[in-house]
Amino acid sequence: MSNIRGFASDNNAGVHPEILKALSEVNTGHTVGYGDDKYTAIARDKFKEVFGEDVEFYPVYNGTGANVVSIQTLIRPFNAVICTDVSHIYVDECGAPEKHSGAKLLPVKTKDGKLTMDLIKQHMHGFGFEHHSQPKMVSITQVSELGTVYTIDEIKAIADYVHSHDMYLHMDGARISNAAVSLGCTLKEMTFDAGVDVLSYGGTKNGMMFGEAVVFANAKLAENVKYIRKQSTQLHSKMRYTSAQFTALLSNELWKRNAEHSNKMAAKLAEKIAEIPQVKITQKVQANGVFCIVPPELIEPLQKEFFFYMWDESRNEVRWMTSFDTTEEDIDNFVKTIKKLLN
Amino acid sequence: MSNIRGFASDNNAGVHPEILKALSEVNTGHTVGYGDDKYTAIARDKFKEVFGEDVEFYPVYNGTGANVVSIQTLIRPFNAVICTDVSHIYVDECGAPEKHSGAKLLPVKTKDGKLTMDLIKQHMHGFGFEHHSQPKMVSITQVSELGTVYTIDEIKAIADYVHSHDMYLHMDGARISNAAVSLGCTLKEMTFDAGVDVLSYGGTKNGMMFGEAVVFANAKLAENVKYIRKQSTQLHSKMRYTSAQFTALLSNELWKRNAEHSNKMAAKLAEKIAEIPQVKITQKVQANGVFCIVPPELIEPLQKEFFFYMWDESRNEVRWMTSFDTTEEDIDNFVKTIKKLLN
Amino acid sequence: MSNIRGFASDNNAGVHPEILKALSEVNTGHTVGYGDDKYTAIARDKFKEVFGEDVEFYPVYNGTGANVVSIQTLIRPFNAVICTDVSHIYVDECGAPEKHSGAKLLPVKTKDGKLTMDLIKQHMHGFGFEHHSQPKMVSITQVSELGTVYTIDEIKAIADYVHSHDMYLHMDGARISNAAVSLGCTLKEMTFDAGVDVLSYGGTKNGMMFGEAVVFANAKLAENVKYIRKQSTQLHSKMRYTSAQFTALLSNELWKRNAEHSNKMAAKLAEKIAEIPQVKITQKVQANGVFCIVPPELIEPLQKEFFFYMWDESRNEVRWMTSFDTTEEDIDNFVKTIKKLLN
Amino acid sequence: MSNIRGFASDNNAGVHPEILKALSEVNTGHTVGYGDDKYTAIARDKFKEVFGEDVEFYPVYNGTGANVVSIQTLIRPFNAVICTDVSHIYVDECGAPEKHSGAKLLPVKTKDGKLTMDLIKQHMHGFGFEHHSQPKMVSITQVSELGTVYTIDEIKAIADYVHSHDMYLHMDGARISNAAVSLGCTLKEMTFDAGVDVLSYGGTKNGMMFGEAVVFANAKLAENVKYIRKQSTQLHSKMRYTSAQFTALLSNELWKRNAEHSNKMAAKLAEKIAEIPQVKITQKVQANGVFCIVPPELIEPLQKEFFFYMWDESRNEVRWMTSFDTTEEDIDNFVKTIKKLLN
Repeated sequence: MSNIRGFASDNNAGVHPEILKALSEVNTGHTVGYGDDKYTAIARDKFKEVFGEDVEFYPVYNGTGANVVSIQTLIRPFNAVICTDVSHIYVDECGAPEKHSGAKLLPVKTKDGKLTMDLIKQHMHGFGFEHHSQPKMVSITQVSELGTVYTIDEIKAIADYVHSHDMYLHMDGARISNAAVSLGCTLKEMTFDAGVDVLSYGGTKNGMMFGEAVVFANAKLAENVKYIRKQSTQLHSKMRYTSAQFTALLSNELWKRNAEHSNKMAAKLAEKIAEIPQVKITQKVQANGVFCIVPPELIEPLQKEFFFYMWDESRNEVRWMTSFDTTEEDIDNFVKTIKKLLN
Repeated sequence: MSNIRGFASDNNAGVHPEILKALSEVNTGHTVGYGDDKYTAIARDKFKEVFGEDVEFYPVYNGTGANVVSIQTLIRPFNAVICTDVSHIYVDECGAPEKHSGAKLLPVKTKDGKLTMDLIKQHMHGFGFEHHSQPKMVSITQVSELGTVYTIDEIKAIADYVHSHDMYLHMDGARISNAAVSLGCTLKEMTFDAGVDVLSYGGTKNGMMFGEAVVFANAKLAENVKYIRKQSTQLHSKMRYTSAQFTALLSNELWKRNAEHSNKMAAKLAEKIAEIPQVKITQKVQANGVFCIVPPELIEPLQKEFFFYMWDESRNEVRWMTSFDTTEEDIDNFVKTIKKLLN
Repeated sequence: MSNIRGFASDNNAGVHPEILKALSEVNTGHTVGYGDDKYTAIARDKFKEVFGEDVEFYPVYNGTGANVVSIQTLIRPFNAVICTDVSHIYVDECGAPEKHSGAKLLPVKTKDGKLTMDLIKQHMHGFGFEHHSQPKMVSITQVSELGTVYTIDEIKAIADYVHSHDMYLHMDGARISNAAVSLGCTLKEMTFDAGVDVLSYGGTKNGMMFGEAVVFANAKLAENVKYIRKQSTQLHSKMRYTSAQFTALLSNELWKRNAEHSNKMAAKLAEKIAEIPQVKITQKVQANGVFCIVPPELIEPLQKEFFFYMWDESRNEVRWMTSFDTTEEDIDNFVKTIKKLLN
Repeated sequence: MSNIRGFASDNNAGVHPEILKALSEVNTGHTVGYGDDKYTAIARDKFKEVFGEDVEFYPVYNGTGANVVSIQTLIRPFNAVICTDVSHIYVDECGAPEKHSGAKLLPVKTKDGKLTMDLIKQHMHGFGFEHHSQPKMVSITQVSELGTVYTIDEIKAIADYVHSHDMYLHMDGARISNAAVSLGCTLKEMTFDAGVDVLSYGGTKNGMMFGEAVVFANAKLAENVKYIRKQSTQLHSKMRYTSAQFTALLSNELWKRNAEHSNKMAAKLAEKIAEIPQVKITQKVQANGVFCIVPPELIEPLQKEFFFYMWDESRNEVRWMTSFDTTEEDIDNFVKTIKKLLN
């Protein structure tokens, strides 16, 4: 339980100083609660500036919260959501999406954590058949849970297919900033321009203390969300402290600087790991995660010096995540330790 | 949407400087997420120090979150929770308790927002009858939603009655610190010593940025809570920032200083209001809320200068809340304005 | 557990011989399941004949099933249903409406089991306020749980009010036939002509073996019901046996003959009871139920000879229900026994 | 929508005459509702006679009802149920298990519709990890959805494994009688003697009009079921008509006679189909279902003359079910038609 450095998750990092400063700056006087304050209005304007005039912005506390609010708002209990079998909503939320929405999640096996039209098609049947949960949403994760990134064209292709079946496209964007940096595009191009209907925008892993946002493509889609956010326990009373963080993150390209740094650190780690013959990188390193198969005897001693998680125990696959505060020295020390332990 | 001073709610206040300082101090290096960190261990120890060795501490984001986690952990969908018809869980959570637990809430009319054994008895029937939601929990709010405070003996009497029927006692303690100060007792005497099974401990209204805690009387009751907290979207990844606030609040009696101040401000307000013949105080002022019936023509012009909410429009009853940062000057200006508007 | 005669409930009666005959008659050969059979088509036509061309007919197993399917189809978890505090959905379904819909039920105290616009108004607030469950449906029971009957004008007044607030009117018609007979009107005049949006049509208490129907005013309202009926476990595989009963009930005025008889028996019982000074009838006897306050010492010995339930133990109020198979002799014996026991 | 003969499902058959007779015989006089009647007591005794003294019997309306009541009684929303990806609970109940229980279903791919310890093991991880739905139940279907039958030893092996992890074994026994006949064992040997904790006992497909039963291995497991059955809308008011059917089914070996006949018809069908080279039987024919891959051009014209369903459209696999009322002539006509259409 000590504060050793690590590669466990980007949420093991702290809060970026500019975020902390923003929190201090709004800590003055009285402000109406629950989002009717001026700081939230500013954050809303920022989101519209970044994602487009039509979007609707609903800040929540965390990623699971953003996902369950997104899903509940657009589908009903007799519907189904198609997602990958490694998606966060499917494996890491203790069944929250099913519990909150009452709907079914339909998992798809993938090689790289990314859905395609062909993979989605497996579950595109049973429409109108009342014994079958009716598919109504596809959920993709950008950056995917395997560290890979959908191109804009890939997203568009999925969105077109989904919309042609009167369904919705949800993007779990817990690491959306890393994806935009990876693709060299704007956040807007990769999301609503590409056909996303509702986005779980991730702030925490990108340097905030807490806070994600549910962002809808337009007001019609967001019609009921305010009640659903409240009922889902995701409405912050002292909202100014969530909103101020978002404003800071989207100002002076903080979101981009943080993502650039963590992506760069992952690239560097991958580069150095590639030189170690006993370690095999298993997925393309496109953002801030490196997945490797390692010699089993390495795992335990390495974990004593650096936090990280096993990804797939059955084949000794590990996941190493970098974050906005990972240093070159962290990488050097980590690689040095791996080499030492392997010899 | 400007930052005018007000008496709308204690959550319109900002964050106490000692809390903000604590957030800065833990913002260093990497820490494992989701509560397995040393800062959460420290907060846990604090809670055990304050509430007793046996208690189990589960931090969450907000009050509705604390309430739905408390309820879900101890009851099942075929059960019912007896509460007042002005309780926060019954009227102010957009049906979250019913939605999350699947259970029924059984409301009781009261004069002062407080349950008694006699009032609870109205709903104590139908046990074993499968057509009837089985009462399994009583929920009391301390300070009550009408600003009144249960005495320790009143809580004990309810707890004994509830336990004699194999039921649980939940306390919604959104303003628990104000109650302890009001009674001049410790937090422990008023809660677990008096027979409370599970407590929603309120931090936000007492000066934190966000954060409440679900506290169980013992480990047996808390058996499943960690899954329920996660599934209810109430698990903070960067938990150190919730925990550090709790530690600060329970250190150097910050919780008490804040509550003492806001109670004192409410008492002062009540004292001055009592001198205005057109305004009638409707509930005992025992903590940090003042409820009054006012001349209808006062309401709108007064709200233009100070935030506050109507409590009961049908009889022109208003609610004025003080907070840790209410100043004597706020009170003076407010009363002055009232007097001016009434003349 | 013996087969003594009684006045406990109209569901203590058996199945009408014409219903049993209908079940035999369709018991021939193979038929496709789940409602795509010709017998269900015939029943559907009968319902359209009786209730109007536009209605949509969805047979289910029982009354609680009909109510939860009705509610779920038209409202969402952040909504609320306004109903009386004696309504079946509120007190006799073990919380099924809340559990299935996730929504809140808002109870109203009444004198005679009937809602009025003024009573409904108590809960008509908080629209657009996200902390408040949004009222979206009013549910009335015809015949009410206290044996009283809404007039057509009373229903119309409620429907107009409800619709003017963009809400839906649900009628729990467990004893709808008794109401139509009581009012001397058609089933259509009392339901969809008067503005009902969705009806739980009751077959079981009127002589069927099992089976109720969810009937919508039009196809738009019924858009999702088939999935909801299935997911709510209310879809009968061998549907022809539900549908054939409905066809029999609506043919040759069986529904009317049964209701006329039971209403007549209740009237006779009430007439005779009125002559007994120690027994006080508490509600107008407008259909097939008689509510009385009786001397407490009467209850136990009388229950030994005839089934019946206590309605309100606190004031020794009992409920006596008649059914299609209650005989004049039953009434005579019952009254004789009461008189004997009182002397 | 005509009454053509078919092989679509055993629920396309009618009601066995002995069942219909039993329904007539109990149609006499008044009986208390909801299961406290003497006919239900008799059925309960029958179940104890057949399944063992310790079992608890709870009649419900249908299979989906039996499954959701079974699941809800033994697990909580943060749990998961391991099942095959062709199981009825996973694919044919419009998401009812997830909606009612709030829990997750974890699907497993199989070759023959049957789980094994090795297949179950895929999902046996994440225990104690709060981000992961906690596996708490395994559900097997006997006869499986692919027409195959678990041996007693196979069930025992699964039960032992499941219990060693403090989990429950559920058996979906929609066609349990066909399985017992197939194995030549008693119903008890194949269920509670083998370690089943809760059984969905199927009556409808075996000749009843409606009705399945939730049967628990002992009273402790059944502790809360009565409330859950009611809340799940599965409690029949005129229960005598469900119970009388069960008593008839378990008397004079009606259950066995019906199952023997349908199994025999399936065997005969399989035998004749084996002679047709263009049709390939894909699963062992162990009960009353025959799965085949057929030439695509056969499907439509054959369906015009006999009801049946596609099983897997992607490979032209069809499912042909026999029932207690399938005749040798049905088989002959069916095979003759197939041969005719193929030439």
